[in-house]
Amino acid sequence: MNTVAVIGTGLMGGSFGLACLSRGLCDEVRGFDRDSQTVEIALDRKAITRRCASPAEAVAGANLVVIATPVAVIPMVYEELAQALSPGAVVTDVGSTKSRVVDSIAPKVPFGTSFIGGHPIAGSELEGIGAARADLYEGCSWILTPTSQTDSASYGMLTRFLGKVGARVLSLNPTAHDEVVALSSHLPQLLSSALMSFAADVAASETGLPLVTAGGFRDMTRIAASNPDLWVGIIKENSGALTRLLRRFTQDLEELTETIETESWAGLYERLSAAREARRALPGKPGLHFEEVVEIVVPVEDRPGILAEVTTTVGSAGVNIEDLDIVHSPEGGRGQIHLSMEGREAADRAIEALKERGFVPRLEAEN
Amino acid sequence: MNTVAVIGTGLMGGSFGLACLSRGLCDEVRGFDRDSQTVEIALDRKAITRRCASPAEAVAGANLVVIATPVAVIPMVYEELAQALSPGAVVTDVGSTKSRVVDSIAPKVPFGTSFIGGHPIAGSELEGIGAARADLYEGCSWILTPTSQTDSASYGMLTRFLGKVGARVLSLNPTAHDEVVALSSHLPQLLSSALMSFAADVAASETGLPLVTAGGFRDMTRIAASNPDLWVGIIKENSGALTRLLRRFTQDLEELTETIETESWAGLYERLSAAREARRALPGKPGLHFEEVVEIVVPVEDRPGILAEVTTTVGSAGVNIEDLDIVHSPEGGRGQIHLSMEGREAADRAIEALKERGFVPRLEAEN
Repeated sequence: MNTVAVIGTGLMGGSFGLACLSRGLCDEVRGFDRDSQTVEIALDRKAITRRCASPAEAVAGANLVVIATPVAVIPMVYEELAQALSPGAVVTDVGSTKSRVVDSIAPKVPFGTSFIGGHPIAGSELEGIGAARADLYEGCSWILTPTSQTDSASYGMLTRFLGKVGARVLSLNPTAHDEVVALSSHLPQLLSSALMSFAADVAASETGLPLVTAGGFRDMTRIAASNPDLWVGIIKENSGALTRLLRRFTQDLEELTETIETESWAGLYERLSAAREARRALPGKPGLHFEEVVEIVVPVEDRPGILAEVTTTVGSAGVNIEDLDIVHSPEGGRGQIHLSMEGREAADRAIEALKERGFVPRLEAEN
Repeated sequence: MNTVAVIGTGLMGGSFGLACLSRGLCDEVRGFDRDSQTVEIALDRKAITRRCASPAEAVAGANLVVIATPVAVIPMVYEELAQALSPGAVVTDVGSTKSRVVDSIAPKVPFGTSFIGGHPIAGSELEGIGAARADLYEGCSWILTPTSQTDSASYGMLTRFLGKVGARVLSLNPTAHDEVVALSSHLPQLLSSALMSFAADVAASETGLPLVTAGGFRDMTRIAASNPDLWVGIIKENSGALTRLLRRFTQDLEELTETIETESWAGLYERLSAAREARRALPGKPGLHFEEVVEIVVPVEDRPGILAEVTTTVGSAGVNIEDLDIVHSPEGGRGQIHLSMEGREAADRAIEALKERGFVPRLEAEN
């Protein structure tokens, strides 16, 4: 890996460039941004090493291309650069929704290159190249959405590279991804915005009610300061999954309200206790305590789509993949996927999930 | 001020003792807690200087008494100690709701002593003396709820003392207090718990949906780890104000869901923008940037209740009081309340609010 291209050098793209260069993962980071000031600052901040006049210029000669534009324009940006890609180039993106991006781009991928949808679960309520940080992706989950077209060598290369950036790769199919982020990102964003507006409105409309805020309120409204343009774009692309969750959550809130109105204090205690247990059971920030790497081996038919099937099965069990390799059998027709993950417990979960799908995985002999 | 008594030496009481002793605000902090281990640790951690066998023993000889027990038992604890109070003693509490506490205690206050309800807007999802910190109250808003019985000298002393602990005093009447905390503390607490349970339930019930959480989700669910016992106690005492807000908030969420379902993207943009503006308009953590102290003078009739009326009017405008003094006219019947607050802007808001209530306040001449 010697040349990375970053299309869109704002918070996400700029941070990726900073991470690559500060960790010495490549020689060159070429940057393009529609906003000339943004790309100028990216160069000043050493988030890129070279400023390019077009996406096509940026990607020519690059081994890895990261599209970090607003999600709505990713397919359009891809079309602009596709014909300029070098043989073997791997293209990914950091868009917050995946189904539409992956479906739009799939039929346009030039032979000999790869597109693998991606989404790092990292960000900030701040925005732009000014907020970019070399450690933005450190310890974050980076979801990849391989499909039946995904080439295993490209997937393995991208997974290892993202690991070097400090992220941990979780593979999901694009639809599962969109449901996961509706739950863990888009719903919280809307709740944060709704709470902030509600509190400000109530405080303003009722005299004698100053808004006195402490840590809890501040925590819960921090992301309400996020960019509304970006969020309208994200919500547009995932409105189905999100509104289904909003309806269910509203139902939950109504039940909670009734629990209080009917003075069912034991029921309220149970609800609050369950929430506490769930919060305490959240894994700590990933990547902070490394466990031993465990490898599992999955014998597979050597056919298109097998990589996506295996990796997204593992991802759906919540297991990150550290490394991946496919060993093809010399006779053809059969092969083995070697997957590395952190810790025996993760490996056991991966094995169980794979068995449920009819695979016959095993732990790699420890030697 | 030489002796403080703390009844209940957990997170709140222990932190108060630590703040007093580390800042040298008193010679002695006497502590009582029903749990003998808690009071032992408080002594070890130098949150108290003396361990007492009963609330009555702790308060005998104390100038300031802080009741920091769970809110449900505050009136009962007050009854246990009332007859042991020294002349001139000022008693306050740190309970999260105020109407019931203040109403229950008012008829039981011995002549020559004061009870002024209090609630520091500070805390932690952690609990117990182990989590106590000398700086817990630094920069926090500390709400006092004076009533028509409140003596101005006691109020002034308590306000100045809390200022030395690092807090900023905001006066509200007990009912307004309970509505303010329903909005800024109890509603966020329930939303945090509801989101955490909802996300865990959805992730558990739908295969292929691991819960992938980033900073926003973690922020929004931090307080879901709070003690359910304490919270059931708080919600019980404020269920009316809270359920009214929950119903209105649920209505807001339904409207937001419809905005998305009907693809009203301009409307969604407006909602998210309004939330962003409101979040950005939140004042920074109070106490971090000190402004000049401005004094205003309010000529008043010298009658019971005037102190509570003036201070809660100022508090309802969101203005903290740094210091307070009443100057009685030598002829009797009239007097002047001197109020200190931070910054000219706060003073102007206080003056405006007081004028609306028929007072004739003025800025103290600057010399």
